[in-house]
Amino acid sequence: MLILLANPNTSAGITDGMAKAACAAASPGTEIKPVTAGFGAKVIGSRMEMVIGDYASLDLVAREGAGCDAVIVAAAIDSGLRAVKQMMSCPVLGLTEAALHAACLVGGSFGLVVSSGRTGIVMREMVAGYGLSSRLAGVRSVGIDPAALYAEPEAALDRLATTALALVEHDGADAVVLIGAVMAGLPPLLQTRVPVPVLEGVACAVPLAEAMVRIAPAKATAGSFARPHGREVSGVGDALAARF
Amino acid sequence: MLILLANPNTSAGITDGMAKAACAAASPGTEIKPVTAGFGAKVIGSRMEMVIGDYASLDLVAREGAGCDAVIVAAAIDSGLRAVKQMMSCPVLGLTEAALHAACLVGGSFGLVVSSGRTGIVMREMVAGYGLSSRLAGVRSVGIDPAALYAEPEAALDRLATTALALVEHDGADAVVLIGAVMAGLPPLLQTRVPVPVLEGVACAVPLAEAMVRIAPAKATAGSFARPHGREVSGVGDALAARF
Amino acid sequence: MLILLANPNTSAGITDGMAKAACAAASPGTEIKPVTAGFGAKVIGSRMEMVIGDYASLDLVAREGAGCDAVIVAAAIDSGLRAVKQMMSCPVLGLTEAALHAACLVGGSFGLVVSSGRTGIVMREMVAGYGLSSRLAGVRSVGIDPAALYAEPEAALDRLATTALALVEHDGADAVVLIGAVMAGLPPLLQTRVPVPVLEGVACAVPLAEAMVRIAPAKATAGSFARPHGREVSGVGDALAARF
Amino acid sequence: MLILLANPNTSAGITDGMAKAACAAASPGTEIKPVTAGFGAKVIGSRMEMVIGDYASLDLVAREGAGCDAVIVAAAIDSGLRAVKQMMSCPVLGLTEAALHAACLVGGSFGLVVSSGRTGIVMREMVAGYGLSSRLAGVRSVGIDPAALYAEPEAALDRLATTALALVEHDGADAVVLIGAVMAGLPPLLQTRVPVPVLEGVACAVPLAEAMVRIAPAKATAGSFARPHGREVSGVGDALAARF
Amino acid sequence: MLILLANPNTSAGITDGMAKAACAAASPGTEIKPVTAGFGAKVIGSRMEMVIGDYASLDLVAREGAGCDAVIVAAAIDSGLRAVKQMMSCPVLGLTEAALHAACLVGGSFGLVVSSGRTGIVMREMVAGYGLSSRLAGVRSVGIDPAALYAEPEAALDRLATTALALVEHDGADAVVLIGAVMAGLPPLLQTRVPVPVLEGVACAVPLAEAMVRIAPAKATAGSFARPHGREVSGVGDALAARF
Amino acid sequence: MLILLANPNTSAGITDGMAKAACAAASPGTEIKPVTAGFGAKVIGSRMEMVIGDYASLDLVAREGAGCDAVIVAAAIDSGLRAVKQMMSCPVLGLTEAALHAACLVGGSFGLVVSSGRTGIVMREMVAGYGLSSRLAGVRSVGIDPAALYAEPEAALDRLATTALALVEHDGADAVVLIGAVMAGLPPLLQTRVPVPVLEGVACAVPLAEAMVRIAPAKATAGSFARPHGREVSGVGDALAARF
Repeated sequence: MLILLANPNTSAGITDGMAKAACAAASPGTEIKPVTAGFGAKVIGSRMEMVIGDYASLDLVAREGAGCDAVIVAAAIDSGLRAVKQMMSCPVLGLTEAALHAACLVGGSFGLVVSSGRTGIVMREMVAGYGLSSRLAGVRSVGIDPAALYAEPEAALDRLATTALALVEHDGADAVVLIGAVMAGLPPLLQTRVPVPVLEGVACAVPLAEAMVRIAPAKATAGSFARPHGREVSGVGDALAARF
Repeated sequence: MLILLANPNTSAGITDGMAKAACAAASPGTEIKPVTAGFGAKVIGSRMEMVIGDYASLDLVAREGAGCDAVIVAAAIDSGLRAVKQMMSCPVLGLTEAALHAACLVGGSFGLVVSSGRTGIVMREMVAGYGLSSRLAGVRSVGIDPAALYAEPEAALDRLATTALALVEHDGADAVVLIGAVMAGLPPLLQTRVPVPVLEGVACAVPLAEAMVRIAPAKATAGSFARPHGREVSGVGDALAARF
Repeated sequence: MLILLANPNTSAGITDGMAKAACAAASPGTEIKPVTAGFGAKVIGSRMEMVIGDYASLDLVAREGAGCDAVIVAAAIDSGLRAVKQMMSCPVLGLTEAALHAACLVGGSFGLVVSSGRTGIVMREMVAGYGLSSRLAGVRSVGIDPAALYAEPEAALDRLATTALALVEHDGADAVVLIGAVMAGLPPLLQTRVPVPVLEGVACAVPLAEAMVRIAPAKATAGSFARPHGREVSGVGDALAARF
Repeated sequence: MLILLANPNTSAGITDGMAKAACAAASPGTEIKPVTAGFGAKVIGSRMEMVIGDYASLDLVAREGAGCDAVIVAAAIDSGLRAVKQMMSCPVLGLTEAALHAACLVGGSFGLVVSSGRTGIVMREMVAGYGLSSRLAGVRSVGIDPAALYAEPEAALDRLATTALALVEHDGADAVVLIGAVMAGLPPLLQTRVPVPVLEGVACAVPLAEAMVRIAPAKATAGSFARPHGREVSGVGDALAARF
Repeated sequence: MLILLANPNTSAGITDGMAKAACAAASPGTEIKPVTAGFGAKVIGSRMEMVIGDYASLDLVAREGAGCDAVIVAAAIDSGLRAVKQMMSCPVLGLTEAALHAACLVGGSFGLVVSSGRTGIVMREMVAGYGLSSRLAGVRSVGIDPAALYAEPEAALDRLATTALALVEHDGADAVVLIGAVMAGLPPLLQTRVPVPVLEGVACAVPLAEAMVRIAPAKATAGSFARPHGREVSGVGDALAARF
Repeated sequence: MLILLANPNTSAGITDGMAKAACAAASPGTEIKPVTAGFGAKVIGSRMEMVIGDYASLDLVAREGAGCDAVIVAAAIDSGLRAVKQMMSCPVLGLTEAALHAACLVGGSFGLVVSSGRTGIVMREMVAGYGLSSRLAGVRSVGIDPAALYAEPEAALDRLATTALALVEHDGADAVVLIGAVMAGLPPLLQTRVPVPVLEGVACAVPLAEAMVRIAPAKATAGSFARPHGREVSGVGDALAARF
């Protein structure tokens, strides 16, 4: 099974980190194909960068997705997720989408650990868009720049643990989700200090993508997720243009 | 990997049908252990039977769950699901819970095909309890007794297809979920006649249970899903009593 | 008028306390018949015990309910309430259900005082299940074990008053509901220290049950609250078995 | 016990009809004091009349409420209900408020039968204002002018029964509430033709008012239901002016 | 263009302050006609005063509204707004309604600064009534009596700024709305100290009323906003009586 | 005052139609600057085209927005609206956003007329994203291709009127909004046949944009609408790149 791990950020270093975590999470026989966006934000961090990232994500999967059995949109913001689902016939999952649904399957409510308050606002909008607001116990920020977190993740563990504990003790979270590509690989380092499951996007998305490949849902031929055809679209890359 | 398929109904015939579908959905190396409740309703079909079924489910898993890597509560009503999750250290999924989350991962909204209007009311309550009401496009009944459906499922295909189509065309469903243990094995027979993915509980629960085993969430030691201890409980079976 | 006060916990002492409060709340001519579950949890306090308590509640009312004009399910968790409503022709109320609706009739929002944070989570789920989340100002825990509260309730009054005041001053509650069987009889002891009405389940359930007996709603013969018939159920007590 | 039945409409004939139903619903020892607004709409039927009716209701209860043990605001629109609750120390219930909460205590969802579609819109707003939208199965109009209904209610029974049945069969209502002062006395005439409980405001409000008198909630001295004091208000009737 | 600025409070001084702010906000060619209620509360501050104010608002606009191109109901509580909309053919806006929609058009969520906690509760009800609860970041009280605020607004600026900042920093508000007639004119004095837009009712209502006059929506002739006709209403002022 | 009318579709013909309607709606002294996207979909009609359109919208406004007093994102889908709001210091409105808020200011609920069912699904998502779902009476499709509608709009009037009437009569809409750039100019042709206000995006957006310019909200310097700075973004157009 071949899973495309498509990072809509342009930072290849983050792709590498996620790829390592993805390989660790994959079943025997699953191959991870990590790819990085060719344009857009180094690390998506504002509403303007999100719009660019949505497009970069769609373009990247159009170019690299052929032959894959599943696609993981590998950014916290799940860039362009609904459009990528429409474009592809295979299962497509977003990092945050996967982690939220894994948390639901654990049971009860989930709390989110985000790097900054600004990300927290956007995460609340995403959770609402997925229809999961009533499962959301709270969102708390560690107040650390994602880049800094990536540079020395271990040094940040204390603040992550404190934030996760506050979600459990004050907000009643039954599970904690670490939001962001830079959190890949961190849950095992935190788990001993947090009394509920600690989840993260990459480690959830890979097994859930494998599961969706086995479930093998048919491709919609009606509704808003059916592939478009006969549309006039200009000025986009060849691979993407060929999808209309 | 050993997955317990626990049917809280007392009808071993339905267990057999689900076990066949579960084996078909399982990855190589996954073994299914099908078990049937020792008391309660033959086919859970009213609020009174649900309460008995919740208890039968908890009792059944207490007796049979030791050594399993995951548990599937194998009834449409997800009998006693939150309590079973609390009791066990391994992942626990319900049939309907699994199918709804698989439908969410497909994207957009889902519609439910139920056997009777009465089941439809309870399903709306369950969807609300899972926090997924905003993803629910509609619930439609085929108006067929589950037993009849089980006796001659192929004869019922026309009505199932018509109902599924109405969910797509009138309610805008992006996926259709067949609700009920007796629906196991039916999606492939219907898919060619429905223009969106057709999903069913057993075929979703097995791959998602495998995925959750790989994700391996820690067992909560705080909150409402932590195991109880030191509680005084009397008059229940030995296996269940040993869990307090 | 004969009202069954059915305690799904096995602790007869709590039944006695509630019976005393129920008699104080009853109109002249109303008789209270207090009964205690024969099996299950001494004091329901976890999701597993809730499932057992739902079944114990249904079994208890099946055995004791004949000839009663109304039934009160006498536990904070309203054990098996919907199923008991389905089973019986007479009005059936839960302790918490009654207190919440009395608080609504007072006007505005209500706040809940619970013994522990874990109960608070389950209460939020119950309030949501009753469709009353938008009337809920907040839930605050006194952090006292229910048994301790029962042992020396007066000693706990300070903490109860402080918690109730926080619901009024910080959460804007227009009424305060004390949650739990052990709270029976406490509101008059607290009221002078709290500037909004203080309510409790038993003292609300008895008058509301009397009112429902006078309203005399017909028994449903259609829908999910109509009595089941012709169902196959095995392994349950004779009284309950006779209801199918 | 003395209950004020305050009709904020100016039609004494409707007051008489409601008084008869109220006496039939009252316990021995309960006296009904029916009063009619001195100004405003004959039958409140538009948003403009509602505003006048809210004020007429407050004025009427200010003049007539002294010495009463409870107040029933006797119009479908529950005119000025929150303000009357604030003004009075005794329990205050609205016709529709009472019927909706009685329906909730029956269990499940309720459907509303209204005289016209325009009333239906306002009823949905009221149900939302009471926080009960998730219990509302549907609203259906009989398309009969309230006055005509009052003139010959029996002739209207067929249409009422058909409308009530549609709420049960198509919308899944577990109880049906007849909305409007002119519906007083009708449920017994309809019940044999409807398979779920049929409820109406007056017959619910009187027993629930009696219950609230027994529960005897304290009068709030803080929050938005505490009585105002020291306010400057001019140009209103003496009785109302004396309340500030 | 002539805009009626109708203050349903009886305090002419507040009308003067709002009129000054309204003239400052008006386009060239727009004339403001400020009028003050002839009866009711000096400053609406409780639920009882609200009901009187709703009626005073309707009466005032009935008397003064002829010939106007738009109406602004000039109180924080938007007194009688829906009824005034029904009565008039021209656009009708409330102070708070206008400010909330302007805040929505800015984007994201809004926070409300209110004078007292009691006002805050009513504001939450109003926001819910307008269907905008999901845009509400929070409500915070400055704890200053409106009259005091009006007496020396500049002295209150520090507390207003602190409160506004808390809405931004703790509640994540993307805009801050100052609630209340006495806030007219204050936003420019606060804006330098608050990092998101600070809005206020009068300054929003005048330009939005001008816009609605240009949009020129047709008057409804069906539904709950169509003018009533042939209704029997007695005991109200001549101008209002003529509207039925 | 200069308003940028930015069409994120590539069809200049639609821009011309909207520009004509915008000029008709503008106040004296307001100048409209119509511009058309340089790449992307001719007429945005699927989720994939939406993602491209969001980016095209951001790019277009980055290139053309300098010196404008307000921006109208001129597509039914409000392409990239939140990101454009973040980027610009002046007011930014979307076509649908403007029409929905104008409908709210009219009062009551609104119904949407869309060209196809697929657009209806996306519109429901947008209304939910704006937090206005509780104001939405219904969505109905005319079942006409937008291009056909544009080619001969008058021929489509019958179907539009029938659809609008169904929203009023069956769904209780208090206002009807015609969704889509091709609807510009149509409301006056329909209004005589529909008994509630008929609104459309361009005719609402221009006056509301003028109003927001007069309200002159400050530019946020904190939160998710503050402009980004110091971000690393590559591979985008020069004008857009200069905004980071």
